[in-house]
Amino acid sequence: MQVYWVNGAYAHVPGHYGQPGPQLPGGGAGCRPLTFVLLHGSWADASFWNGVAAELRRQGHIVHVPEYPGHGADPNTNVTHGQITQAVADYIVECDLKDVILVGHSFGGSVVQTTAERVPDRIKRLVFANALVLGKGQSPADQFPPEARQGFEQLRQASKDDTITLPFNIFRETFVNLADLDLARRLYAEIRPEPAKPLFEKLKLDSFYEHDIPRSYLYLTGDNVLPQGGGYGWHPHMSSRLGLFRLIEAQGDHMTYFRTAPAYVACKLYEASRD
Amino acid sequence: MQVYWVNGAYAHVPGHYGQPGPQLPGGGAGCRPLTFVLLHGSWADASFWNGVAAELRRQGHIVHVPEYPGHGADPNTNVTHGQITQAVADYIVECDLKDVILVGHSFGGSVVQTTAERVPDRIKRLVFANALVLGKGQSPADQFPPEARQGFEQLRQASKDDTITLPFNIFRETFVNLADLDLARRLYAEIRPEPAKPLFEKLKLDSFYEHDIPRSYLYLTGDNVLPQGGGYGWHPHMSSRLGLFRLIEAQGDHMTYFRTAPAYVACKLYEASRD
Amino acid sequence: MQVYWVNGAYAHVPGHYGQPGPQLPGGGAGCRPLTFVLLHGSWADASFWNGVAAELRRQGHIVHVPEYPGHGADPNTNVTHGQITQAVADYIVECDLKDVILVGHSFGGSVVQTTAERVPDRIKRLVFANALVLGKGQSPADQFPPEARQGFEQLRQASKDDTITLPFNIFRETFVNLADLDLARRLYAEIRPEPAKPLFEKLKLDSFYEHDIPRSYLYLTGDNVLPQGGGYGWHPHMSSRLGLFRLIEAQGDHMTYFRTAPAYVACKLYEASRD
Repeated sequence: MQVYWVNGAYAHVPGHYGQPGPQLPGGGAGCRPLTFVLLHGSWADASFWNGVAAELRRQGHIVHVPEYPGHGADPNTNVTHGQITQAVADYIVECDLKDVILVGHSFGGSVVQTTAERVPDRIKRLVFANALVLGKGQSPADQFPPEARQGFEQLRQASKDDTITLPFNIFRETFVNLADLDLARRLYAEIRPEPAKPLFEKLKLDSFYEHDIPRSYLYLTGDNVLPQGGGYGWHPHMSSRLGLFRLIEAQGDHMTYFRTAPAYVACKLYEASRD
Repeated sequence: MQVYWVNGAYAHVPGHYGQPGPQLPGGGAGCRPLTFVLLHGSWADASFWNGVAAELRRQGHIVHVPEYPGHGADPNTNVTHGQITQAVADYIVECDLKDVILVGHSFGGSVVQTTAERVPDRIKRLVFANALVLGKGQSPADQFPPEARQGFEQLRQASKDDTITLPFNIFRETFVNLADLDLARRLYAEIRPEPAKPLFEKLKLDSFYEHDIPRSYLYLTGDNVLPQGGGYGWHPHMSSRLGLFRLIEAQGDHMTYFRTAPAYVACKLYEASRD
Repeated sequence: MQVYWVNGAYAHVPGHYGQPGPQLPGGGAGCRPLTFVLLHGSWADASFWNGVAAELRRQGHIVHVPEYPGHGADPNTNVTHGQITQAVADYIVECDLKDVILVGHSFGGSVVQTTAERVPDRIKRLVFANALVLGKGQSPADQFPPEARQGFEQLRQASKDDTITLPFNIFRETFVNLADLDLARRLYAEIRPEPAKPLFEKLKLDSFYEHDIPRSYLYLTGDNVLPQGGGYGWHPHMSSRLGLFRLIEAQGDHMTYFRTAPAYVACKLYEASRD
């Protein structure tokens, strides 16, 4: 990752740091309109972003929330990581989006990485929000400790359609630890089994580690989905793979504030996304 | 700890996650009455919890604060960890407490572990508040770096009654780093030499690492009693021994806010304790 | 560092923990006047402290902000770490300052260490604010990962006057990650190339690791100039070299809040500095 530190290449690319322009009435002083593409995580669909997207739009930004194959209304759970990536890249091309702020949450971080390999010229900045940053040749599941990975594998084998049903106790204790029980149950009732294939796919990611798109890590510090030490975790373990990146720290666990405090999350997301 | 992750056993135990019930007028929306047993740390006695206990009671909870042998009014400093555990377990049985939220602060974490081995069926959740979580066969003193452990041993040998007198500078700089000097002196004036034996006892803890009682870690991030890195520390180093646990982060050092901001601590304790 | 833990030597030195005295009207209850000497970091000069110094003075403290050779109005960039140390030590002696709170930010931490070796009897407490704490025989540059160190070396070789010009993208993304772009540009416009020699000097620091002056670490948690894990970072990696120290955590990145929130930083600095 030396290139980011030494050459500072992207500092010299016109447009990477914008010029003063029109400011947004809803976003406070200095807020300039951005084009967001928001990618959700596992055990979620595009509706995960509803609150945050509405808040960003209220501030004057353009917000796109593409759905993945095998998620949302799509009943077919037999999908690959490559199909998800292709769908997101196609969406960006078909909408002719440029200067995209490509945001991933959780599993969505791996889709940010692979999408950036497909349409690098359309992306202005990559933003990882408690999101996976995979090393070369790794799978999303590789980011979990062995006992959790084995747990996922057992849950996968126990399913009839190659999916993983997240047990409620894991969801309640580590995905929404800041929620009360009623909210935890309500959010849990919304999720469906996650297609397993993309979680276990090894991704090459060679070109991801060669391009020089600016990147940020939004780290909500109360997230305990991954162990916070011992060679695991969102930050600094995975974030450090980004080389030079902008760190924005905030309060929150893995999912709760995206749902209950969307204005707060949108504010921090903007801090991570602006030039 | 695979059992917590994979089987999610406790999610299926009736009562572990309660049903909607009567709510408490003093505790805000969704607050349901719990039965707390609060266990203090070293260089403290049951009065350590006075403010937090009062606040929890004000919210409608039942709160018990048993004293350890060798602490409080008991002048005999020749006590063992086993005697402390027995006293707490006896207290819970004699009061016929059920569905207990067993909370330990600091050294009290090791008593949470051993008490849970004695009366597991009476406990609903274990809560560690910047508290020791010992590995199998370890002592409380084993959680400190060698130079601190040696310091404790020297202080122990210098005493006439097998106690350890905490030097003021260590107390002021690492136990109450957020206090001003006057408060630090006032709090220091309240403490007495700590019986040394329980701090150096190796605990087997075999059955602790087999049961499946839900557990939480309340982590006050400004606590520097133990080094925050290098293989030491409350969280994530010791907390990770809990396997699957609920993390609640808060502001505070090791002791100050328990005394000066009991409503804040009680609020965070409730977030760690609720279903 | 055993001495700090075991002997608690400084607890017994008269004056290290002051007696109740006159309180300051501007500083809130319990605020007592201190004598600060503030040492700035690299890519900065004494004006870095303007806002914080004004705030501390408003509270009734005495504040000195000596300039380093090779910085500020001094055009000669051919300076050594020893010359910087000598200038600060001379300043303290010539002003006949006593009971000094010696504060370093960033590179200034290494100057705190070497100045403490020269005039230990004049210093009451060392305060490191996201500041370097070098191990024996190390250089400031040794605290950076190899790729960043190599980047510095290349920038040094590319200069005509043995200085390092910080690329804007590195400044914007890691020194002022919490600033908006306009502020980042304004702050960047103020800095000049940093004399390279002091950054690569190996410092013996033998006597630093023998004296027993109380020390504090003020850690602004959003600082990403150094990696926050993997054997690098302000805290706990470098701070742990201090042995027994007082930790004060606060919000902020490496530079922004010193400029935009000086009252907040001054408040946290006082918490780190008081007896």
